[in-house]
Amino acid sequence: MEENKEDVVTPFSIESGETGVDYEKLVAKFGCEFVKPEHVQQIEELTGQKPHHLLRRGIYFAHRDLDVILSTFRNRKPFYLYTGRGPSSAALHVGHMVPFIINKWLQDAFNVPMIIQITDDEKYLYRPELSYEDVQKYAKENIRDIIACGFDINKTFIFTDSSYIHRLYPNFIKMQKHITLNQIQGCFGFNGTDNIGKWAYPPLQAVPAFSNSFPEIFGNRNIPCLIPEAIDQDPYFRMTRDVAPRIGYLKPAVLHAKFFPALQGLNTKMSASDANSAIYMDDTPEVIAKKITSYAFSGGGRSLKEHREKGANLAVDVPFQYLTFFMEDDARLEEIRVKYGSGEMLTKEIKADTIRIVTEFVLEHQRRRSLVTDEMIEAFMTPRPLLVNNL
Amino acid sequence: MEENKEDVVTPFSIESGETGVDYEKLVAKFGCEFVKPEHVQQIEELTGQKPHHLLRRGIYFAHRDLDVILSTFRNRKPFYLYTGRGPSSAALHVGHMVPFIINKWLQDAFNVPMIIQITDDEKYLYRPELSYEDVQKYAKENIRDIIACGFDINKTFIFTDSSYIHRLYPNFIKMQKHITLNQIQGCFGFNGTDNIGKWAYPPLQAVPAFSNSFPEIFGNRNIPCLIPEAIDQDPYFRMTRDVAPRIGYLKPAVLHAKFFPALQGLNTKMSASDANSAIYMDDTPEVIAKKITSYAFSGGGRSLKEHREKGANLAVDVPFQYLTFFMEDDARLEEIRVKYGSGEMLTKEIKADTIRIVTEFVLEHQRRRSLVTDEMIEAFMTPRPLLVNNL
Repeated sequence: MEENKEDVVTPFSIESGETGVDYEKLVAKFGCEFVKPEHVQQIEELTGQKPHHLLRRGIYFAHRDLDVILSTFRNRKPFYLYTGRGPSSAALHVGHMVPFIINKWLQDAFNVPMIIQITDDEKYLYRPELSYEDVQKYAKENIRDIIACGFDINKTFIFTDSSYIHRLYPNFIKMQKHITLNQIQGCFGFNGTDNIGKWAYPPLQAVPAFSNSFPEIFGNRNIPCLIPEAIDQDPYFRMTRDVAPRIGYLKPAVLHAKFFPALQGLNTKMSASDANSAIYMDDTPEVIAKKITSYAFSGGGRSLKEHREKGANLAVDVPFQYLTFFMEDDARLEEIRVKYGSGEMLTKEIKADTIRIVTEFVLEHQRRRSLVTDEMIEAFMTPRPLLVNNL
Repeated sequence: MEENKEDVVTPFSIESGETGVDYEKLVAKFGCEFVKPEHVQQIEELTGQKPHHLLRRGIYFAHRDLDVILSTFRNRKPFYLYTGRGPSSAALHVGHMVPFIINKWLQDAFNVPMIIQITDDEKYLYRPELSYEDVQKYAKENIRDIIACGFDINKTFIFTDSSYIHRLYPNFIKMQKHITLNQIQGCFGFNGTDNIGKWAYPPLQAVPAFSNSFPEIFGNRNIPCLIPEAIDQDPYFRMTRDVAPRIGYLKPAVLHAKFFPALQGLNTKMSASDANSAIYMDDTPEVIAKKITSYAFSGGGRSLKEHREKGANLAVDVPFQYLTFFMEDDARLEEIRVKYGSGEMLTKEIKADTIRIVTEFVLEHQRRRSLVTDEMIEAFMTPRPLLVNNL
């Protein structure tokens, strides 16, 4: 019966069967479109660069109006990127890094400005256990991690909602005026015992999708926006796209990623209350090895005999999923797919690859993070014109 | 049957019988307390000044924790005043002036800081017909009127929500986190087709009641607040007083006025869509005379004979009400009360007094308003320490 139950995907929870979310059904339900090979090919032609493996491997798999953005760029008109982070904890896990990886790649490849919203207010309002001071502290640590991803200081503005609210506020109340309580309920499913700030927050996530929210950066120009994020954020931008034309603004385009799985499997949730459900960007190599060895859900056979005969079920194998997200070497990944899928390669072998790739990724991040100073944070958070060729 | 219907008083509408709101019932229903002669006497003792006629005549008639404020002052500890204005139109009417008159008097008498909130966001969110630009324009014109009331530049800070939101925001979301949708509905009676910004706004009216919302003015000090306003604003401050202790803040005290009546009578509403329902601060002497002569509801007898026999019904007589609010001369007001109440004085005579008093008030305001420069507006709106002896 499991597979007949409908997946539930909201910005607040994801429920699915053990093979994870059915993305065909989700795309149909949300009403967005699949990224096609032609899109990836166009990105290569337009940027002159081999598309990032998160694009080539279909991890960024769905979109709205990506064609509009690509033809804007083809016509030598500017666009900008916008993504965000809710500072609910001091340390990010590897899954949190995915949108920043693709955004940095897109920023470099297209040479466009990048806007990063840190929703300190959201996390304070949505998490009963967090104080205002907690989220301020987490916001700063999260920004340090984001800068460590390598964003270009000349092309990137990072802000917390509370630090930039004076600029966001006019568009925030414009959005709020054009969305009823019933519409918020339809999109987000809150109830009467939820606090009123939680109800009122969603329109704020729309605001950075409008270029005139950033007068110091874009002046009064009306510049199209592309939002690469995980698909659970789609309700925010369905709402945004619904209201935008009614207030005279451009609809933002979106580019959606599949979900990054928890160690325990594609139907489980990474949870801050269970440190073993995810690998954190401040984990040590020993902890990483231990977590992957002990907790990463395997799609391998239950016995050596069964494994050699049937091979691994790659669709539910967490180490294989992690490699798909993080291993850059296409040839090695293909070799693993064939050999592990056929049973020639064993679970402990793919786990060794996974430990190596994830450890390298985390240690390199830690090294770059240690170089991020408070002055750099301040510089990224200073509103200023962003120097971009085609703007 | 009329008198058995319960009055409906909310920040958005007032419905009552023809003798106006039953304030005994309203005070009981809201759970606030009556201002007693002892309070007025204490104000005289503490300030060394004869209390303003709006206090002496019982127009400011109800309160919460006024005793706390008076004993704070008696103990030589500071408090501050807070009131507000929703900029829904360019011109104020005479009724809008009442809170500013009492606040200016209290500021001078107690020598305390005054905070004035201009709720541009509220009016934009609550009035479908108003654009964001409309409310910005009205806000500036309303501030000009408020400054013309004579507030002391050394003791007064005026802000619009959108211009000062960066400081208000932390306490705004703290308030929002501690109020559920159901509680907003219980206090304000909105429904699902109302926009989400309207639902979320009320906690912002609480924020200026907390001194730490104004770091440039009060530093980190925890200073008690007194809010003199019309009693229809009570729901905002019941809500504020309910939440304040839960977030570690002092409950603000309130001082409530009775309603200023429309020209057409105590059970009618002053309405921007009917220019003849109120006297505006930019009306000419001719218009003022015309409005009072033609439209001010009279409690006089229907015939001269009836009037001479029974006298005027002062409780419903609009000119008498206006004089109670605006005539400073106690002896003349008492003479009118006796002579008009007994039928010795005629409606046209009291209307002549009313025209004279209101015209003097409006012309003097227009004179002072013409002296308010843009530089003065900017000065009042600049956050800065307020120079007050006992702070």
